[in-house]
Amino acid sequence: MSVEWAGVGPEVLLRLDRSASEPLRVQLERGLREAIRSGRLEAGERLPSSRAMAAELGISRGLVLECYSQLQAEGFLTSRSGSATRVAAGALAPAELPVQPPPLARPIVDFRPGVPDLTSFPRRDWVWALREGSRGATPLELGYGDPRGVQFLRVVLAGYLRRVRGAVADAERVVVCGGFAQGINLVLGALSRRGTGRVAIEDPGDVDYLAICERLGIRAVPVRIDKRGIDVEALAAAEVGAVILTPTHQFPTGTALASERRQALVAWAQACGAMIIEDDYDAEFRYDRDPVGALQGLAPDRVALIGTVSKSLAPGLRLGWVVCPPDILEPLIEEKRLSDRGSPALEQLALAILMESGRFDRQVRRMRQVYGSRRDTLVRALSTGAPAVVLHGLAAGFHAVADLAAEADEQAIVEQARERSVGLYGMSSFRPSGGGGAPQLVLGFGNLSQTAIERGIAAVADLL
Amino acid sequence: MSVEWAGVGPEVLLRLDRSASEPLRVQLERGLREAIRSGRLEAGERLPSSRAMAAELGISRGLVLECYSQLQAEGFLTSRSGSATRVAAGALAPAELPVQPPPLARPIVDFRPGVPDLTSFPRRDWVWALREGSRGATPLELGYGDPRGVQFLRVVLAGYLRRVRGAVADAERVVVCGGFAQGINLVLGALSRRGTGRVAIEDPGDVDYLAICERLGIRAVPVRIDKRGIDVEALAAAEVGAVILTPTHQFPTGTALASERRQALVAWAQACGAMIIEDDYDAEFRYDRDPVGALQGLAPDRVALIGTVSKSLAPGLRLGWVVCPPDILEPLIEEKRLSDRGSPALEQLALAILMESGRFDRQVRRMRQVYGSRRDTLVRALSTGAPAVVLHGLAAGFHAVADLAAEADEQAIVEQARERSVGLYGMSSFRPSGGGGAPQLVLGFGNLSQTAIERGIAAVADLL
Repeated sequence: MSVEWAGVGPEVLLRLDRSASEPLRVQLERGLREAIRSGRLEAGERLPSSRAMAAELGISRGLVLECYSQLQAEGFLTSRSGSATRVAAGALAPAELPVQPPPLARPIVDFRPGVPDLTSFPRRDWVWALREGSRGATPLELGYGDPRGVQFLRVVLAGYLRRVRGAVADAERVVVCGGFAQGINLVLGALSRRGTGRVAIEDPGDVDYLAICERLGIRAVPVRIDKRGIDVEALAAAEVGAVILTPTHQFPTGTALASERRQALVAWAQACGAMIIEDDYDAEFRYDRDPVGALQGLAPDRVALIGTVSKSLAPGLRLGWVVCPPDILEPLIEEKRLSDRGSPALEQLALAILMESGRFDRQVRRMRQVYGSRRDTLVRALSTGAPAVVLHGLAAGFHAVADLAAEADEQAIVEQARERSVGLYGMSSFRPSGGGGAPQLVLGFGNLSQTAIERGIAAVADLL
Repeated sequence: MSVEWAGVGPEVLLRLDRSASEPLRVQLERGLREAIRSGRLEAGERLPSSRAMAAELGISRGLVLECYSQLQAEGFLTSRSGSATRVAAGALAPAELPVQPPPLARPIVDFRPGVPDLTSFPRRDWVWALREGSRGATPLELGYGDPRGVQFLRVVLAGYLRRVRGAVADAERVVVCGGFAQGINLVLGALSRRGTGRVAIEDPGDVDYLAICERLGIRAVPVRIDKRGIDVEALAAAEVGAVILTPTHQFPTGTALASERRQALVAWAQACGAMIIEDDYDAEFRYDRDPVGALQGLAPDRVALIGTVSKSLAPGLRLGWVVCPPDILEPLIEEKRLSDRGSPALEQLALAILMESGRFDRQVRRMRQVYGSRRDTLVRALSTGAPAVVLHGLAAGFHAVADLAAEADEQAIVEQARERSVGLYGMSSFRPSGGGGAPQLVLGFGNLSQTAIERGIAAVADLL
């Protein structure tokens, strides 16, 4: 179909603003593109000759010709030698985006677990470390580097993990990644390529594993957690090739894996060649004694240790690491290489410098005190406002589990609290098996000031 | 098996250094862990009583008890009430890592394509932008944010892409990611979930797509490139649900997709509902005229546009973006959320600030001049040293294609150059189909000074 130029003068279609800083040619090109996309110029329609267009708009003919030629190269216009320039078929405005539901208003006091204190991020130290790291970055580090990450950070991390987590670590086996979230994808991806089709996950635990595993072609099998951690007999019966665990401070129940269970678990993994994936998410924050060493230290051949700065510095840094057993080191590095060619270099250098300088340890010590005080505030506020509620899992980290009365309705309490602008989270939203259990709340207090904790608990105490 | 304490005094096994800054308890714990891991203390072996150990080492009994209890919690020791503390089974040293082959010595002059000038990274500007970004980051940005990325950057990027690339972009449809490498994984992952099983790739092109696609359960189908870009008839015959393209400056042949091919391509995609994945890797560097607008501008519903700062700033930043068609926006955001919960926030803020301040454009303009001079140097050096060689694909970017004599042996030339410490790359290493073709070299000159280009070409001119 060949429509003639509709007769509307180009100056109606195209407004050139001679006072704007944008060159006239750019304005003309953009105007024509938009007219074509919006349908104001139809497919097949003939454009005025360059001479006519130039005269109408009061610009030079050369400028119009350049513009036509540019839009032709981009596929908006067609032109055969000797015939007129026409609008090409196919350039249309994009479909409307699906309308997003408006986000729910954030609760004023939000006990969401897993969020550290976001106001305590050590900005000055981090900026200092970034500056030092950026100044010293080598061309090699600025290029496409080792997919495992910057060598300097891997050396520093290996030392840190040996010293603080009792891990068996050397730089060769450390792979830097985008937080725990990418770490688990890399490990599962490597296992999947090795043929692992079933992986056990903790129940209660993180329900996101269902989707993460499914995406990688792995079946996630929930295995129950009791007061001593994962039930190793149930695990053995699940016939899985790997298990994802939070042995030091189970998420969300807050228990530590009992000593004899640690041994039984390692014996199981060694007997059947299974892999234990250790999520060491908040290892730094233990209050009553030194942190329990990482399980990885006990069986470095069978445990992949995943750590992160999301709790110690900030989730927004998206920086973590995997200490990888030799078995899956090569496939894991290949996963990392193919999925993003490595993590950002300058933030790796910054973390290495922060750790080497002692500022990282200082921040962790400082935050241990902050969280310790918040924990005490939560305990006090609950014992005053809702003395019947029993708290667990407070030896480490910054969340607690609150037992509700046996007849309490978890979901109703969560909803009523929400109406009072308090965010509460029921244990049922952490059950990947979909099974039931006694009514409980998981109370995160990391990102709440002591005043906010007191106000939040006071506002909902009667519900508990 | 229950072995008694071997009789060697603990002071042989464990050396405590009283002058060290490390507390004695930490030294004792580490010493025992290492003795167990290395096999010096065997599984089942009985440890001395805490009293005896304390006396032998000259430390307090309480300290030994704390240490035993810590190692028991970690699973290295077992202890039942009333019986002795023993070494648990299962804690062994890790297997030796496979020995890595020593890396090849880097060539002194390396014409590897795809690497920008790593010495020109604007450190001062980037550090300034990082500092500004870190100072102004909100708690929300430091937390677990929108998986699409920081809102500020998405708004700035959408504007930049509209202005510089003629793209149809708004912040809602921009997803920030870890360079092009992660972008392509996200798009392919989203397509795979939608049921796309076959994706066309350019031949010549990047052979890594074979592994990237396979990992996502997708069959990569190489489609031939000629002097006008991809052969759209061959593409239509390949029966694919998507195609990965470098339309503006084909990698590695350097051609631009011809105007009528752009239209045919879009018509094909619209007719069969296929997706075009546009790799806009070095769009900023075009020398003889303005860059051709992104193909995405012509068909925003059918094109996913992936961009990166790897060429304009540095690959080590690992920062890129996808402008996503509405069709696959939701699954793509979910891919990003599940794979790493979003990209690092502070570098996103830094890029937004760099772009807003005009410093990004200034850097691009500066580098366009630098690469333009290097391109001229390469042309001169070849016309002097090897006048028979014909160069193509020099209108943009920082690599060129050199036609060798028809009887030349590409692989032999690459190897001989290597012996002279010059890195050359044959076209055959960019043929995912594995097919043959006329002997050619792909010469990257982005990361070579003019002197290095001259010396490198002089060193191998007789081979060409």
